[in-house]
Amino acid sequence: MDEFKVIEIKRSVFENNDKEADEVRRQLKKDKTFLLNLMSAPGSGKTTTLKATLKALMNDYKIGVMEADIDSDVDARAIEQAGIRSIQLHTGGMCHLDAGMTKQGLDSFNAEEYDFVVLENVGNLVCPAEFDTGASKNAMILSVPEGDDKPLKYPLMFTVSDCVLINKIDTKSVFDFDDEAVVERIKRLNPNAEIFFISAKTGEGVDKWVDWLRAQIDEWNAD
Amino acid sequence: MDEFKVIEIKRSVFENNDKEADEVRRQLKKDKTFLLNLMSAPGSGKTTTLKATLKALMNDYKIGVMEADIDSDVDARAIEQAGIRSIQLHTGGMCHLDAGMTKQGLDSFNAEEYDFVVLENVGNLVCPAEFDTGASKNAMILSVPEGDDKPLKYPLMFTVSDCVLINKIDTKSVFDFDDEAVVERIKRLNPNAEIFFISAKTGEGVDKWVDWLRAQIDEWNAD
Repeated sequence: MDEFKVIEIKRSVFENNDKEADEVRRQLKKDKTFLLNLMSAPGSGKTTTLKATLKALMNDYKIGVMEADIDSDVDARAIEQAGIRSIQLHTGGMCHLDAGMTKQGLDSFNAEEYDFVVLENVGNLVCPAEFDTGASKNAMILSVPEGDDKPLKYPLMFTVSDCVLINKIDTKSVFDFDDEAVVERIKRLNPNAEIFFISAKTGEGVDKWVDWLRAQIDEWNAD
Repeated sequence: MDEFKVIEIKRSVFENNDKEADEVRRQLKKDKTFLLNLMSAPGSGKTTTLKATLKALMNDYKIGVMEADIDSDVDARAIEQAGIRSIQLHTGGMCHLDAGMTKQGLDSFNAEEYDFVVLENVGNLVCPAEFDTGASKNAMILSVPEGDDKPLKYPLMFTVSDCVLINKIDTKSVFDFDDEAVVERIKRLNPNAEIFFISAKTGEGVDKWVDWLRAQIDEWNAD
């Protein structure tokens, strides 16, 4: 496998991000490419979750990953080492990706060749929630160490996510984390959110999340 | 103690943030008010660290806290319950505070009456690093569960922080976290950064950080 590409993405020139996002989604649908926008705070385990998830799906789909980061390429490197094609998008200091920036990534990746592309967004619970990237679905990760009060403090992120993964459940012995309270707080913001409790490290609960994801990919890519 | 105020801060109108920040600092110096800008990712334990810190200092200084959040008032409530005067700044969706926004908070708080004011910035490792708030010193928290690779991924935050607290060291048994590697990565970005390993929950290591902070406050407020 070749070394992954590093793309320095430019600030988007499109004034109407929602319109551009719909355009990205239309093209993805036409190409039968399911795009998952994965968001979370720094250090919630996005890359580890991604590796566990893709391991379960890599024999059934042609998969690519776009790693967005302010700087560094540690995530793209980790994904390539797991045997998945990836590119690194450098945002040049920007705290989120919008639809135009996502499109730059998809175009330089020949995304139409893939069944399933993951956009690992910048680690941030604020800005990425404000910009529709054009993804087929949005998922976010909240890790147990961050605390069960996060839906109160970052409501928009929980509102725009189709699926919420509660990660690092293997560390519950050392944290106060109220499962019922967090579910209630998420559902109040977003009654339709799918919620899965997982440990990307031990694999616990990952199968149910993967089943849900598989169903979304198949539905999107169906004729 | 009265209920704390909630301030809806406005987007700053100042074009030159650095100039405005210097102006804020000049006024703080004149008023003998030390302002600490405390930054971190969501869920790193900012509020718990603050409570442990202020408990050690509240008999010696007149202290006030400005809690910045997208929404909610859970942090201001927690600080008031610890017996410290606080106000909640609502950023209206914005991911950071700049100097003009900090000034709105200070003015509505009568900050000149305090020896020591803490600005708990929005939970975010990206945007707050880009804007000088006018604070006397910047401190940040990196918690063990977030991982020792964060200086590689969010370099600017580590570069602008005078002090880095590595928090939640009581949870090290369940995480892979390399103390030496994180110190080396921080020092490469910022050779002068003070680094303290603490557990705000158990109190371990908090005394050394408090000693450092006390020295900064006394130096700032000296004639």
